[in-house]
Amino acid sequence: MNKAITVGLLGLGTVGSGVIEILRDHKERIEHKTGCDVTIKSVLVSDMSKPREVPAETQLTDQYQDITRDPEIDVIVEVMGGIDHTLTILLEAIEHGKHIVTANKDLVAQHGEQLFEACQKHNCDLYYEASVAGGIPIIRSIMDGLSSDRITKMMGIVNGTTNYIMTKMAQDGVDFDSVLKEAQDLGFAEADPTADVDGLDAARKMTILSILGFSMPYSLEDVDIKGIRGISSDDITYAEELGYRIKLIGIAENDHNGVSVSVEPTLLPIQHPLSSVNDEFNAVYVYGDAVGETMFYGPGAGKLPTATAVVADLIAVLKNIRLGTTGTAYVQPQFPKQVKTKKEQVTKKYIRLHADDKAGMLNDLTNIFAQYDLSFDQFTQRSTDQEGERELMMVTHQVSEEDFEKAIQDLETLDSVRSIDSIFRVEGGN
Amino acid sequence: MNKAITVGLLGLGTVGSGVIEILRDHKERIEHKTGCDVTIKSVLVSDMSKPREVPAETQLTDQYQDITRDPEIDVIVEVMGGIDHTLTILLEAIEHGKHIVTANKDLVAQHGEQLFEACQKHNCDLYYEASVAGGIPIIRSIMDGLSSDRITKMMGIVNGTTNYIMTKMAQDGVDFDSVLKEAQDLGFAEADPTADVDGLDAARKMTILSILGFSMPYSLEDVDIKGIRGISSDDITYAEELGYRIKLIGIAENDHNGVSVSVEPTLLPIQHPLSSVNDEFNAVYVYGDAVGETMFYGPGAGKLPTATAVVADLIAVLKNIRLGTTGTAYVQPQFPKQVKTKKEQVTKKYIRLHADDKAGMLNDLTNIFAQYDLSFDQFTQRSTDQEGERELMMVTHQVSEEDFEKAIQDLETLDSVRSIDSIFRVEGGN
Repeated sequence: MNKAITVGLLGLGTVGSGVIEILRDHKERIEHKTGCDVTIKSVLVSDMSKPREVPAETQLTDQYQDITRDPEIDVIVEVMGGIDHTLTILLEAIEHGKHIVTANKDLVAQHGEQLFEACQKHNCDLYYEASVAGGIPIIRSIMDGLSSDRITKMMGIVNGTTNYIMTKMAQDGVDFDSVLKEAQDLGFAEADPTADVDGLDAARKMTILSILGFSMPYSLEDVDIKGIRGISSDDITYAEELGYRIKLIGIAENDHNGVSVSVEPTLLPIQHPLSSVNDEFNAVYVYGDAVGETMFYGPGAGKLPTATAVVADLIAVLKNIRLGTTGTAYVQPQFPKQVKTKKEQVTKKYIRLHADDKAGMLNDLTNIFAQYDLSFDQFTQRSTDQEGERELMMVTHQVSEEDFEKAIQDLETLDSVRSIDSIFRVEGGN
Repeated sequence: MNKAITVGLLGLGTVGSGVIEILRDHKERIEHKTGCDVTIKSVLVSDMSKPREVPAETQLTDQYQDITRDPEIDVIVEVMGGIDHTLTILLEAIEHGKHIVTANKDLVAQHGEQLFEACQKHNCDLYYEASVAGGIPIIRSIMDGLSSDRITKMMGIVNGTTNYIMTKMAQDGVDFDSVLKEAQDLGFAEADPTADVDGLDAARKMTILSILGFSMPYSLEDVDIKGIRGISSDDITYAEELGYRIKLIGIAENDHNGVSVSVEPTLLPIQHPLSSVNDEFNAVYVYGDAVGETMFYGPGAGKLPTATAVVADLIAVLKNIRLGTTGTAYVQPQFPKQVKTKKEQVTKKYIRLHADDKAGMLNDLTNIFAQYDLSFDQFTQRSTDQEGERELMMVTHQVSEEDFEKAIQDLETLDSVRSIDSIFRVEGGN
């Protein structure tokens, strides 16, 4: 005999309609797996007058209390987005004993701790697989699949819009602005692309992964964020020549000094598995002490991929309800927060700059680098179409963020340096 | 207050020592995640006289009943391998109420159903993540992460030895026998490599994935298996020229006609994500109706990668014990077994053959193919160093296995055909 479970859905945009579609198309599968019959009783929408396609038994409301306070509703599926107002609604729902499934990375990255505490107090489930990398079950893989290992590094292509833009720039040799416009026309990029192209969206996802993967509190404010606006076609060409591809990569590292998380354009060796992740696809590369390297690849967004993650979470909640084990998924972080200083953050860098083609220029430059013990893995110099100008591309060996920033400040004071055009992180090699 | 859990370990080879190592190195992590203190009380070994490194509290035995009948032991971790004798031991352990974690693909592929039934009867857990693709949490990803979706196809590089051999053959242009010898010297291939190179090992893993992914019983006997012995350097070169790479791929497909599973050398488009999975790495590509394409990549074997999967399973059992929900993981297959006939199995094929260079030869060939409605996507003909001989490489469009086999039989009767050298499956395109 199946158990009847009643769901309240917050939001009926793309993902919301995907959830309704999957619950309808996979009804028997879900019943078989969970022993539960699921009904979506109510859906919160902002505009009641808009025509909607919902099941006959589902009612619409624009009053969230109709859902949070409805004693019949067991589980809330939140796919409306937003932060402060949504937090209020979910906290009220949790107080009323509702289990939560959310796809909201902004909310989880910023208020995850508060939500988890409320859930623990009221013995509720909180699942959020869809908040990072849409259709890729990366949260589960980290929580369960790699639970026996110590994760030391995660590298993610976790924003589809920027990966689409970087792929097109590399493949077609066009510049950032043209590709962005094309992506907007195709619906791959928002009208206001700021959160995507400036790296904030990826930073939120990396924050969520870091807390989970390193079992340590970490804040969005501690993430170093650089977007992709500054990348020129020249950089992409030069990187290829040096054996690299440029991607917007979120990197989270954990060693004995603590954790550092950054989102920035990064040169990856062409043969690195993340280098072949193209178009709007996402992938998360995870290094564990024991397991070595693993990668999880798939669609990072989209109606049905995201909805599959939401419904997979719902299935987990249904199983917990049947087994009487709701509220047990959350584990307090094992370690206190420890953020690496700039001195402890050590990476390789790519620098492209323009300088006067005059005697002593190179010596001035190398003097500065030598002062900070900064040596080079690769160095190229070429003439430009400007009279008396040279363009220099350098890839450094490992250098601390602190020393590197000082070196760049010193470089900027040199008369012979006309412009420092690009500075990107480099992964791979030594 | 932590709960004390006692483990019996069956086998102390590479993976067994890895399990001991991870339980020691990650003691605090595991205690934190599970609230359990784990002790390995006994280890079953075949040779008591061999010196072993085990924790002080651990005793060795060569009598399995010391473990299966020990009332103190809660969980059995089986990493000894073998089929019939191991089945006997595990069934006895289950009868005594022990939960089982196993890395034994041979056993699960052949006797999984019997083990699951025994576990259900005695309310025991059975976890087997390490049996497929070592460090990649693919079983969990299919069971939980993609639980809301209908999986229609899985393609796996699930045997590290053959992938290592295929990678070296492609990269260094050497032939099968030399690479196999090198792999044996390096310890990547067994002294008796039959199960690996002839595809049986991969077939066992694909059987396990198919039962799980399609929620349908499926037998090892129903898998079409071809190994990699017949692949020549020429095939690899020609495939490259046509835009393909050859890999040993397990392919499981599920449509309205039923399920077909095969393991065979397969031509994959070079840009396919599985084509860049090199050396001894494994990867499983999963297509779902809603999620689209996802891929899971990582080490397929090795002491610590495999042991992480075993200990991740142990952690799952520990959590279940704490929550009082053991024996609930197994779900009966939803659908009855339905194996596709040869008429229903439709694929593209690559054929390489040698024929007489004489008038009408090509017409004889094309007549046969036309008879079975078999048309070509790619066709190349070249001269060989034999007088009056031509070599032909063809990639067909989709054709049923039944028609294709008949066409090949007819080809073999042609006087002008000197030898049919290679026949491989082709994926991608139409």
